[in-house]
Amino acid sequence: MSSQFQSRDPAFKARVSASFGEQSVMQLIGATLGTVEPGHVEIELPYRADLTQQDNFLHAGISSTIMDSACGYAAFSLMPAEARVLTIEFKINLLAPAAGQHFRAVGSVRKPGRSVFVAESELHASVDGEDRLVATMVGTLMAVYPD
Amino acid sequence: MSSQFQSRDPAFKARVSASFGEQSVMQLIGATLGTVEPGHVEIELPYRADLTQQDNFLHAGISSTIMDSACGYAAFSLMPAEARVLTIEFKINLLAPAAGQHFRAVGSVRKPGRSVFVAESELHASVDGEDRLVATMVGTLMAVYPD
Amino acid sequence: MSSQFQSRDPAFKARVSASFGEQSVMQLIGATLGTVEPGHVEIELPYRADLTQQDNFLHAGISSTIMDSACGYAAFSLMPAEARVLTIEFKINLLAPAAGQHFRAVGSVRKPGRSVFVAESELHASVDGEDRLVATMVGTLMAVYPD
Amino acid sequence: MSSQFQSRDPAFKARVSASFGEQSVMQLIGATLGTVEPGHVEIELPYRADLTQQDNFLHAGISSTIMDSACGYAAFSLMPAEARVLTIEFKINLLAPAAGQHFRAVGSVRKPGRSVFVAESELHASVDGEDRLVATMVGTLMAVYPD
Repeated sequence: MSSQFQSRDPAFKARVSASFGEQSVMQLIGATLGTVEPGHVEIELPYRADLTQQDNFLHAGISSTIMDSACGYAAFSLMPAEARVLTIEFKINLLAPAAGQHFRAVGSVRKPGRSVFVAESELHASVDGEDRLVATMVGTLMAVYPD
Repeated sequence: MSSQFQSRDPAFKARVSASFGEQSVMQLIGATLGTVEPGHVEIELPYRADLTQQDNFLHAGISSTIMDSACGYAAFSLMPAEARVLTIEFKINLLAPAAGQHFRAVGSVRKPGRSVFVAESELHASVDGEDRLVATMVGTLMAVYPD
Repeated sequence: MSSQFQSRDPAFKARVSASFGEQSVMQLIGATLGTVEPGHVEIELPYRADLTQQDNFLHAGISSTIMDSACGYAAFSLMPAEARVLTIEFKINLLAPAAGQHFRAVGSVRKPGRSVFVAESELHASVDGEDRLVATMVGTLMAVYPD
Repeated sequence: MSSQFQSRDPAFKARVSASFGEQSVMQLIGATLGTVEPGHVEIELPYRADLTQQDNFLHAGISSTIMDSACGYAAFSLMPAEARVLTIEFKINLLAPAAGQHFRAVGSVRKPGRSVFVAESELHASVDGEDRLVATMVGTLMAVYPD
């Protein structure tokens, strides 16, 4: 995993991991942190029947949960150690039904800034071993600094 | 609750309620169906610590879960009985931290169509009895008809 | 025109008007500034055949031009006198073809902040004297302060 | 220019070019059609002072004009000859001020469909010979077929 970005905080992996551990919703849905590189974060989610909408596909809100966090932590990985990260807004496009045995949200920073970051994520479904892109997200994140 | 729309299906409330009952994720997070009127659907969600992000606010993905379904069922309430509803895309703006004891997603149709619907939802938080608007969503939904 | 907002700058109307006058694209397309109230700005645009796409409707980019500026100046009207306004992102939903003799973009602030503002705008078309909502926008604006 | 897509219409280039020629707004702003490949369309725009906002950058609505058409024609290039193309919605993120001597909107289809297409575009500015990415767009397009 090569990256075009460098983190200003050598401890960025531990920082992302600690914050992810505090997102209690991730335990509820069974999501785990995957690859963490500067400006690039992946989140893994096995399919579960209790995460679905009326057609037994992953609910778009659950897709959003791991895609938003993948965007957020991709941005967070590039922030100075004292910053907090906040999502301002995001947009998701649902390209195909989120069916499959396993899902992976792949977040990457498109444009870093001092306070405003733009990040994107893709949701990949593993369907009988085949990889399918099922959703894309673009989001705006904010670095919040202590007063 | 007056509405500017009329449903083409007199059984729209039962139809929305049955479909909502099949969204197993709603049981996981503890969400329940509230008001259902033509083109207008509300979803209720009590705060739970296991639905949160790292700052103990409702995770934006959980907010999205109930706001997307509020949009979707608002559109679904206006569709003919044989149609299925599909979210194509949505955008959420997070106006304030989703803190509070109770949340209500209020979805309403902005523009109905034969196949494409535009709907909006607001997320209201109840904070010590006070109502606060914490997020807005706009989404595009599609009516899918049997062949 | 009542408003829920108060401007911190008593000269906000002159400030909006001066900045609008510097948007040279507005002269190119024939747009003029309409109502300016705290957190609320309207922009008027008569139909012209040279603003259209292949079906003789107003091009979505021209709709965006006046809707984005309506959002931006609605936010700008609430900012302190020394701030500049910058659009971070916006989303537009095209509800109906932008046909008609006259268009009015109505921008209003949904959530003011110190640095981040969320604003919305509607595009109304006048079609043989009848008012039609043809597009909606939600955008995020930033106040930029001198160092 | 290799492409992952194949057009179903061998005359897609002529079809895109003819439709672009009917977008009279393109002549007003001085935009011309560039590369046209299956699922990939570029639009060129030299800087002009009368296309700008108050800081002499290209107005976001003018950026949107060429980016929306780049998305739309990327989708249109993959549609059957009898279809018309309609933008349903788009979102633009402004990553940097649109300064420069020349702009190029690069549109590409992310997900084709029978009726719904998702496309993306990037806006590149040429600044003293250097290429800078200044905006990204994701949009939803619809193929409309004759009755």
